[in-house]
This record gives sequence, C-alpha cells and structure tokens, in this order.
Amino acid sequence: MRFLILALVALGSGIVHAGDNIVGFDATASAAQRELEAQLDATVDAGEMDGWLKLMSATPHHVGSLASKENAEFIAELLSSWGYDTEIAEYEILLPVPKVREVELVAPTNYEASLTEDTLAEDPSTAVRETLLPPYNAFSRDGEVEAELVFVNYGIPEDYEILERYGIDVTGKIAIAKYGRSWRGIKPKLAGEKGAIGTIIYSDPADDGYGAGDVYPKGPFKNESGVQRGSVMDMPTYPGDVLTPGRGATKGARRLDREDAPTITEIPVLPMSYRDALPLLSALGGEVVPNEWRGGLPITYHLGPGPARVRMKAEFDWKMVTAYNVIARLEGSEFSQEWVIRGNHHDGWNHGAADPLSGLVAMLAEAKGVAELAKAGHRPLRTVIYAAWDAEEPGLIGSTEWAEHHADDLRKHAVAYLNTDGSSRGFLSMGGSHVLERYLNQIAEELDDPLSDITLKERSRANLLINGDAKRQAEAKDRKDLRIYPMGSGSDYTPFLQHLGIASANLGFGGEAADGSYHTLYDTYEHYMRFRDPGLVYGATLAKVTARATLRLANAPRLPFEFKGFADNVALYVSELEELAENMRSTTEKTNQLITDGIYAAALDPNKTFGPPVAKQPVPHFNFAPLKNALARLVQAASEFDTVAMSASASSEEINKLLYTSERLLTRDAGLDGREWYKHHIYAPGFYTGYGVKTIPGVREAIEQRDYDKVEPQIAIAADVLNAMADRVELLSARLNGEST
Amino acid sequence: MRFLILALVALGSGIVHAGDNIVGFDATASAAQRELEAQLDATVDAGEMDGWLKLMSATPHHVGSLASKENAEFIAELLSSWGYDTEIAEYEILLPVPKVREVELVAPTNYEASLTEDTLAEDPSTAVRETLLPPYNAFSRDGEVEAELVFVNYGIPEDYEILERYGIDVTGKIAIAKYGRSWRGIKPKLAGEKGAIGTIIYSDPADDGYGAGDVYPKGPFKNESGVQRGSVMDMPTYPGDVLTPGRGATKGARRLDREDAPTITEIPVLPMSYRDALPLLSALGGEVVPNEWRGGLPITYHLGPGPARVRMKAEFDWKMVTAYNVIARLEGSEFSQEWVIRGNHHDGWNHGAADPLSGLVAMLAEAKGVAELAKAGHRPLRTVIYAAWDAEEPGLIGSTEWAEHHADDLRKHAVAYLNTDGSSRGFLSMGGSHVLERYLNQIAEELDDPLSDITLKERSRANLLINGDAKRQAEAKDRKDLRIYPMGSGSDYTPFLQHLGIASANLGFGGEAADGSYHTLYDTYEHYMRFRDPGLVYGATLAKVTARATLRLANAPRLPFEFKGFADNVALYVSELEELAENMRSTTEKTNQLITDGIYAAALDPNKTFGPPVAKQPVPHFNFAPLKNALARLVQAASEFDTVAMSASASSEEINKLLYTSERLLTRDAGLDGREWYKHHIYAPGFYTGYGVKTIPGVREAIEQRDYDKVEPQIAIAADVLNAMADRVELLSARLNGEST
Repeated sequence: MRFLILALVALGSGIVHAGDNIVGFDATASAAQRELEAQLDATVDAGEMDGWLKLMSATPHHVGSLASKENAEFIAELLSSWGYDTEIAEYEILLPVPKVREVELVAPTNYEASLTEDTLAEDPSTAVRETLLPPYNAFSRDGEVEAELVFVNYGIPEDYEILERYGIDVTGKIAIAKYGRSWRGIKPKLAGEKGAIGTIIYSDPADDGYGAGDVYPKGPFKNESGVQRGSVMDMPTYPGDVLTPGRGATKGARRLDREDAPTITEIPVLPMSYRDALPLLSALGGEVVPNEWRGGLPITYHLGPGPARVRMKAEFDWKMVTAYNVIARLEGSEFSQEWVIRGNHHDGWNHGAADPLSGLVAMLAEAKGVAELAKAGHRPLRTVIYAAWDAEEPGLIGSTEWAEHHADDLRKHAVAYLNTDGSSRGFLSMGGSHVLERYLNQIAEELDDPLSDITLKERSRANLLINGDAKRQAEAKDRKDLRIYPMGSGSDYTPFLQHLGIASANLGFGGEAADGSYHTLYDTYEHYMRFRDPGLVYGATLAKVTARATLRLANAPRLPFEFKGFADNVALYVSELEELAENMRSTTEKTNQLITDGIYAAALDPNKTFGPPVAKQPVPHFNFAPLKNALARLVQAASEFDTVAMSASASSEEINKLLYTSERLLTRDAGLDGREWYKHHIYAPGFYTGYGVKTIPGVREAIEQRDYDKVEPQIAIAADVLNAMADRVELLSARLNGEST
Repeated sequence: MRFLILALVALGSGIVHAGDNIVGFDATASAAQRELEAQLDATVDAGEMDGWLKLMSATPHHVGSLASKENAEFIAELLSSWGYDTEIAEYEILLPVPKVREVELVAPTNYEASLTEDTLAEDPSTAVRETLLPPYNAFSRDGEVEAELVFVNYGIPEDYEILERYGIDVTGKIAIAKYGRSWRGIKPKLAGEKGAIGTIIYSDPADDGYGAGDVYPKGPFKNESGVQRGSVMDMPTYPGDVLTPGRGATKGARRLDREDAPTITEIPVLPMSYRDALPLLSALGGEVVPNEWRGGLPITYHLGPGPARVRMKAEFDWKMVTAYNVIARLEGSEFSQEWVIRGNHHDGWNHGAADPLSGLVAMLAEAKGVAELAKAGHRPLRTVIYAAWDAEEPGLIGSTEWAEHHADDLRKHAVAYLNTDGSSRGFLSMGGSHVLERYLNQIAEELDDPLSDITLKERSRANLLINGDAKRQAEAKDRKDLRIYPMGSGSDYTPFLQHLGIASANLGFGGEAADGSYHTLYDTYEHYMRFRDPGLVYGATLAKVTARATLRLANAPRLPFEFKGFADNVALYVSELEELAENMRSTTEKTNQLITDGIYAAALDPNKTFGPPVAKQPVPHFNFAPLKNALARLVQAASEFDTVAMSASASSEEINKLLYTSERLLTRDAGLDGREWYKHHIYAPGFYTGYGVKTIPGVREAIEQRDYDKVEPQIAIAADVLNAMADRVELLSARLNGEST
C-alpha cells in the first residue's frame, strides 16, 4: 500500500455495522453466526492453499488426462478426510483432441505457422508438457480448406457491417479474427453464417501482448508464442456434452450422432499466436483497415481478401472420455432436503494455476473450515454440497451433465448455487441472481480488503466512483448496495441458473492483474504467484467471502432472498430496453435519411471502396405496457415484502421453499426462442456475444436482431414471468403476515 | 467516383443560386463579376501548374538556399511577365543551420541514432540532396546534455499531470515526446518549464507511420526513417525573426542580441524517426505507460526515467540569411488605396512539393488569370498584391517581417489578407475572420467539387453530417452557412490577422489524403502526384476558389463584410467560456471531494506507483455579464446592419473603410497578457497549444490556466473590444441609411 488512506468516508446510508442483523437472521442468530464465521476465518491458511495449488498445477490436467483424474481423486480424498460424504460422479463425454493442426500461408509467400508455445527458462513449469493439449479450439469440426484470407477484426456482427460497406464478401474465404469483444465461439459461428470456410483466431498484441503491458516472463501478458486455447462449441445454443443436450451423459444415455450435434462448428477453426499471425496479416492486400480495427503488430493492417492465401487443416480424435466430478455432501442438521451447492471446476486447459485452481483452493479452504465447524458441533442446518467440476473448459460439461442428470432433484431441493472460478487480486466481483444482491452486499460490508483497511464493498465502490462510466459513477454515490452484475455465461453457474432456475452467484477478485496467461501454456504456478495473487492474500479472503456466502445460506432461519434489489435491477433492464428501441429507431431513421439524401455518398472518399451503409427496416414503436405493468406490480410487491420482512422474523419450511423456488418462476419450460435449453427469461448469454449477458433476453435480442415481429410476443412472455414473480412475492408477504390462502 | 449520387438534397434554406446577388454586389455588378470569374476559370490550367510544381520542387529550397532564391526569382519573373509590378523584398534574418546533431543511447546499451532519412529507388527526388537541411528543429538552442530519459507522451500540460501522479519529476532529465496533439514548439517549451534539460521529438508509427497506413513509397505515411523537421521557436510569444520582434528585419534594423531573444528554446531539442526512437524507448524501465499513451512500436512502452541514459548534442551555425519575399502589385483601377493581399509562402523545408508549392501554384494560376482579365480591360477596382513569402517554415518570418515593416501602411490600406499554403484533396477547408463567413460560403456554393457534381459547400456539409461531432452534426442540418474555423497560427496569416487586425482567411483542400510527408525528405513531386492530388484537380479548383475570393474583394462596390455570422460565432465562443468555467468548477469540486474522501487512494492499485491527483484551487464564479451585454449589443447591431444592408445598396469609400477597418477594433495595442505582439482579442494561437486557436484568448487562457484573478479583467477587455465593434456596426447602419453623425 503506497497511499495512506486518511479519510475514507463511508458512503450510502445503510452500512451494516457489526451489530446489525444478518439478512435472514435475528439478533441472537446473527451473533452466533458471526461467531462461527470468525472461527472459520481462523482456519483459512494461505500456506496450505499454496501447497494444494502447487501440487495440482504441477502438470497439465485437462479432462481425459491422467492428471485430471488424479486431481479429482486428491480433491475427493481431502473432502472425504474432512468428513464429507464424497463421491466421484462420472460422465462419458465427447472430447475432440487434436491430431492435425496446420496453418500455412501458401501465397504470395510461404509461411508455416508453428502453432507452438515456447518453453521459458524462467518458468520450469513450461517445460512440463506431459499430456499438454496443444493450442486448439475444442469443437471445431474437422476440415482442410484453402482460400484467400480476409481480416474480420473481432469477427462480431458490427464488423461484418463494415466489411459490407467495403464491398467485401467473406464467402468462400478464410476469416482471421482477433480474440476479444465477444466470446471466441461467436467468431467461427458468425464467419460460418457469412459464408467463410475457415476461421483463424489470434491474440493481437495491442489487446493481449506487448501493447497491453510487459510480456511473460518479464510481465504477465502474452508473449509472442502464447496462444489462447478454448472451446468454440455453440454454448449459446446449449452447453455441456454435445451429444446429450438436456440429459446427463451417463453411460447408457441416449446420444446424438456426432454429425447431428448442432453445437459443433460449421467450419474448421484454429487459434494462433501473434508471432504466427504476423506473416499472414503482412501478406494481406486490399484497403487499409478502419482506424478502430488496427492492432499492435508493426505493420499496416489490410482487409484483404488476398493476395494472402491460406491452407488450414484441423483434424481431431473425437474421443469419448470420462469427466470426474467430485461431489461432497454434508447433510444438513435440520433441513437436509434444502441443498446449498457450491462449486468450482478442477480441469484446466493446461497447468491451470489461475484457471481454475486459484478459485478451487479457496473453495477447499472454505470446505475445510465448514467441516471443522461441523466437527466442533456446528453442522450447517441445510445440506451443503461441494462440487469440483471436471470438463468445464471444453464447454461447462461436468457441471451441465450433473445438473441435467439430477435436474428433478435439483429443482426441488436446490436453495442456491455459488460458483467460483479463476480469481486474482483487486476488487471483489459479485455477479448473480438479483434476489441475492442484499445478502452478497452485506458480506462485502463485513470483510476488509486484505491490503487496505477498508471493506471490500467500499473499495469496490471507490473503484466505481473513479473508474465507472458516468451513469455508474453517479449511482455509486447514493445507491446503498452495489449492483451485482447479471450473469451471462462462461462458468459452471450456467446450468444451475439458466437451465434449472436456481438462484446463483459467481464470486472472485480481479481488476488489478492482467489475465495474459489465460488458456496458455503460461498459466502456471510461477506466473500466478508472481503476477496474480502473490501470497494468495486475496485467495484467502475469497475463502472467507464464500464461506460466509455458503454458511449464511445454510444456516439462515429465513433464507436471505429479497426482492427490492431484484425489482430495481429489472426496472433498469426494462428502461434499457425502451432506450435501446428508441435509440435504434432514431439512429435508423437518421441513417436511412442520410442514405436517401445522398449525404453518405457525398461525404465518402471517391478514391476508396468504402461505401454508404445499407438502409435498414425502420424500427416500429413497441407496446412495452405489459412489461411495465408487471414491473410496477413487482416493485410494489417487493416493497411490501421488504416492510413485512423487516418486522416479521417468522419463517417456516414452506416460506423458505417459496423463497428459494422463486427463481424457478423466471424460467419457462419452452426456453428462449430458438434455444430451448436456456429457460431463464431474465438472464442469458447473448446469442451473438457468447459470455456477455443479455438481460430480459427474449425481448432484447428480438430488438437487437431487428426481429420486430417477435418483440411484442416476447414482451408478453417477460411480463408473464414477472407477474408470476410478483404473485410469489405477494404470497410470501401474506405468509409472513401469518395469512394462509 | 465510385458511388452514384442519386439524390443529394440541398440543405439549409438560403442556398444562393446563380441568379442571386454576390454579397456586396447589386444584380448588374453580380452578373458582370460572374462573367469575369467564368473567364478566369477558363485560364486555369492544371498542366501548367504541374510544370511549375515540378520545376520548383526539383531540389530542396529552404530560406537561405540558392534554390529558394532561384524559386523567388522564377516566381517574380512569372508575375512580372503577366504585368504585375513586381519586386523582391529582402530581409536579413537569423537562421540556425545544424552543425552537430547527435543522439546516443549510452546506457544500459549503446545506440547511436542515425538522424538520417533513406533514399528510395522509387522516388528519384529523394536522391537529390544538394542544400537539403537534415532533420532538425529550428531555433533549438545549442547544447550538449546527458541524462536519464523519460517518456512524456505528447508533452502537453495534461501529460505532466499524469506524470506527477506517477511521482515522476522530469527535472534534470531528457524528455522524449511524440509528435502530435500540440504544435511541436510546445513540447520543448513545456519540458523546459518542467525542468527537463533536453527534448527529443519523434513521430510514432501509430500516429504517422505503419500504424496509420501504408508507408512511403507504398503509401503516403512516414516510413521508418522519415523525420518531421520544423521550427520550435516560441511562436505563441511572437513569430518572425527572433532578433527583431515588432519591426521589419531590414538591413539596418535594431536587433536583439541572440542571447536575449526570448523565442529561442531554453533547452536543446532534436527530432527523430521511429526507427531511431525504438532502441531508446525499448531501453526505458519504470512503470508501463497508461493505456492512452501507448504508441505503435512493437514494444511495451515504459515511462522511465532511466535506466535508459541519453546523450544529445545540438549545435547550430547561427547564420544571418536573406529572405526573399516576392511582392507583385496590380494597381486598382478605382480604389488603389484599398489593398487586397493574397499570399502563399515559397520556401520549403526540403523539396516542399506539398508544403508549400501545392498552394503556391494555385496562387500563381489565380494571379495569371487575374492578370489576363486586367489585360482584357477588367483590371480590379482595388489594388491586388500577390506575395510569395520566404522563410515561413522557420517561423512565419518572411511574412511577419514584411507585415511589421509595412505595418502603418497595412493598417491603413489593407482590406483583407487571403492565405493559402500546402493543399491536397478532399473537402474545402475555410478558416478566417468571421466577418468573411458569408462571403466565403457563397463562393463554396458556386463551385462544384471536381470529382462529383455537388457544390463544395454541400460536400463539406455532408462531411460534417456524417463525420462531425454531435453538436456540429446537429447544427449542419439547419445552419445556412457552414462555420468557418477561427484561426490560431501555422501559416502566414498570423501577422496580418493577429498582429495588425486585418481580416484574413485561409483556404485549402484536405481530409482525404494523408499528410505523412509533412516536413520530411519525402515531400516530393512524386509523393504529391501519387497520393495527394493526382492531376492537380483540387489544385485547379483551389485556384478558382481563391480567384473568386480575391476578385470579389477587389471588385465589390461594397466590401462583402457582414456581422451576423461574426456575432453568431462570438456568441458560441462566449457560451463555450461559460461552459468551460462551469465544467472546470464542477470537475474540480468533484475531484477535490474524491481526494479528500480518500476515494482515489481506495481505488488505486497498491502495487503501482500511480497516486491520486493533487487537489486544485476551487474555481470561483465569474461575472460574465459585461461580455454578454456587449455580445447582446453586437447581435442586435449586426441584425440591424443585415436588414439595412439588404435594402440599401449604397456604398462609398468611407463605408468601405469603416467595413474593412472594423477588424482593427478587435485588437488592442497592449496585446494579450504577457505577449503584446498578439493584438487580436478574438483569435490567437494558444500559449500552450501553439497552432491551435484560442478564441477570446484573454478570457479563455486565464480560465484554463486557473489564473482566476485575471479572468474578470480579461472579460472587461473582451467586452470593450466587442462594444467597439458594436459601435462600428451601428455607425455602418447609420451611414447606409444615409445618416451622418
């Protein structure tokens, strides 16, 4: 800490002090719970976490590798030794493992891409390569193609609009795209939709290389040989085993033929380093890219297509492998049919020190502490289930198969799902179902940042006040709770939240350490301990955060769900939808007018091929009233519940069940339009963003995709969902008031 | 032209059609004038311009070189042969010519900068190097220094605020700055003020090199050896010969000792290419630069200071050389005591094809046409003076000395000064005194873009509508006239406008061709004809634009000055000043509060040296009323004049004198605070921006520099100036109504 903090003013009016009740607990229960938490904190040992991290990251341990099985067994042994009822739940899943990976520039010059990462003398782990999967994108289809190359920037929808203005059609071409701005799987998906026959994805040094900061081993960013691996399965359609959508991939499960699996890419795709991309990009001709498309290589970027011609070949061994999920259960002392599930995956693409082990060791420290409390007579009231998932990397497979396999039980018993994944240092990041907003904020109010004497919440608030966009800055001054972010996808909460409607959260530290090792050979113990979280001080704090999260859910007399925060966030999303439509309408109108009037044509450089945009269908006015009426009801009901809940400390199994199943009401069996696996109607990963969330996705994506006819039907659906939630909240108020229906 | 323009809608309500009167002309006079202009257009011959351009750019021709003298003589001969009364006006000026230029990295490794530009087989001109001045910054002081290097981004005030937050003091260090974001002379000036002992300026490839586009000879941008030369004299204090501020540098003129010349830099400065900068920047340690500071070299940029240590030595031959201004006069047939002055410089830093010859050949074509009209019996009513200035490059010296030398006559007789300089292709750019806004707009309405069948004005408007910022976009839809830009400095209009108060304008084409050859060895005929204005089609159009500008001023029965546009622009500037103070006040208040509350400290990365900003003096409220009252009077007077001028076609020498001397009222003998040479109180180059304009500079700079005590006195001065203008406009209305005072 370089700066003395002289006078950090606590902002917001409702800071909870040590003496305030924990949400869902009365005064006595709060005191007892806080006493337990203090005892648990004392058990968290960064040195021990360090030992686990070092051991499990010694060799690459992707699903299907021996090391992955051994890590699973190690985790299971630990949990079992602490007293958990532990099993290893196995699923048989399809995993493509590379056989042939070739990218070759065949004209106008020749260059054969190495597709290999360098061993570094400074990091001995990088020499350990048994079972290392070479750089590849899992669930690329097999294929060999040769064609002219075309640069598509990040390969997201707006990039193709620009290419069209240049008169460039990618049909029959190989698209080369930068990593970033979307989840990687979107790039081949969209390139394929546009007619490309192959995709190359590379990390540009401006985004993740020397342009962003010092490269490994000097600094944390990608060196010239680093390649981001990663799945490109069509997760926005469904995650998990590609052959068993919607059902657990047990041994005898019914399976699709691989040829029929809709989530394998349409075209072959391979990732590469910027060292390999340089000769390819240098060989491109055509127009110079727009300013915003430039990267950090020491060349002038051109769009192509050609004269660069590329041949690429991707061939995979489509293996059936076993995913080993470690499932450890501690039966609740009072409400054993109410399950609090807490998970982190254990498989990595490689050594996986940051991703996922940094989060996993925090979960293990937490689990150990919870077990010790239990041994000392403080077994949680509800059942706690710790899960170390396998096969997250290729597509959330371990968690998805388990969740699908146990769907009925989970819908019945699961109170909530709490997730962690790779974590580093900086600010506590909290995402999740908004019914958990107050409860998570309260935890962040009660723990200090490990390097400064301010609470995690106030440090995050300070970050928002300094670095947030104008809207968030203004809000952060006065809004008592920090908004938790709505979740899209990218980790194991997805099957619980979006498929089963289980309230979920995702927790971790970040924002002050570069993520340059992500999915490369360089995600090693050495890298992690030098650059990400030296001494695991944030890791130890994460264990304390998540232990509170788990234990408060497990022990709360009344579950700490609340609805005012939920309603307030939904109100924000509804207003965003109206703004979105409004802005699209005025922009479309304005742009169309400029096109019609010839203004674009008049302003364009006659020596360039860049043309005017194509006119778009005008955006009609939509009837948002059903959604706003439902929202109004929800706001009212949530406010009433808040008042009632403040005064009435009553609870019951029925009330708790009404609370924790409320999230289920946000789902519909039919799922989202065109992707029925995703059943949640408030949170979904974007169909064209991947990890990036779309809130109220049915309505939002219909507007964004200019599917105007679908907007009002989707508004009706979203309104139904909110009305069901409002009904539930009203019912809860009645029950708390001792009324029966 | 690639795109068919189907329906370009003429925007704005007041488009002048061929039949409308020219401002200052009645119907009969307008028709006659338009007939003359058509005759003149027919004389403009791009082939002939091409010949002149090729000839004059064959060798480097900076002031003091034989080629510069020969070009001056060639120009004089042409003008004389066309019938102008031509002289070459000589001034004896101080010019530093490099003797020693050395930059050497002495630690931690060694690298000696070449400071030399490559000869290119593709461009024979680059092999012609007799009299070529090597890359240097004119009016750097002599010096040899050795110190740690520190990276200061663009070396502008806000960059030093960031460095302070990193705890970096440049005292005793050598600063390396990127070209751009300010006029170059600001960089050593500010570095010196901050305590640095030397400055290196280089062109970063992200701004002007491969990052921006293809490099020469493949494309127009700077190749790795290209270096921007240029003056670093403190032009915002005064331009022109450093030894003779305020007076002509005639042979016997009183001169300062060189040691006392305040406009020579305090510290030595040398420019370099990005090839030379690379080893220096690579050797810097310390923190990684902020994101916005990154450049396009394939390295991680660090701030330093050190471990890179640099020795630099700059030694100059401080020569007295002769500047040759060509002055060609065509006596007016009726009002010979009213002078229309039209100028473009002829000296270049090198071959100078773009800068300045592209503008000069357009002026010559114009002058030839005007002479031919005169020979055919249509001599202009007023005296027209064509000037080809020498020594513009080292600091507007030729024009400034002539203007200072003839200050009394010019104040009396000069109607206006019309300037051109290097020009290329794209959109007509019009800057100048706002009393000329309507007159310039009318010209732009009457000529078509040479590559499309729309007027220059509508093409510029289209550009604003597509590429302007939101404010300009909105305005461009409805405002009849396009705003002409207020002028700072950077070309020869400065002594006329800002020292003498002569209404001035600056015209040229640009916006569609990169300026990468600027002040390098590569500003050649070959470069120009390939990338800037192939066929000189825009150059020929420029001759037609400026011929109209000259002839309408020379022939208008009543001079085409008007005041509504002036008042409207001043109103904009006054509103900007209020906004500036308001924004600074709220930002300062907010930032100070965040500092006091410890929010910055809480949000900062404890592992980095970047600290909170330092609190600033709160911004008081200022009394803008005097300025707004004066403005209100001016707006009223201008509107009245407009009405009167529309109906009364009366004119007289007195009225014209009242018109053209109105601009003088915007000056005060005392000049601006701290820089008395600059006498104009509406337009000035910024003291810390250089070329960049500051409108109502006394008030604006007092606010920006937080010199709060000076704001209200400056408001009073600006109000006086506007009141004097309002008086004049009222007087003019009275005279037009036939009243006498």
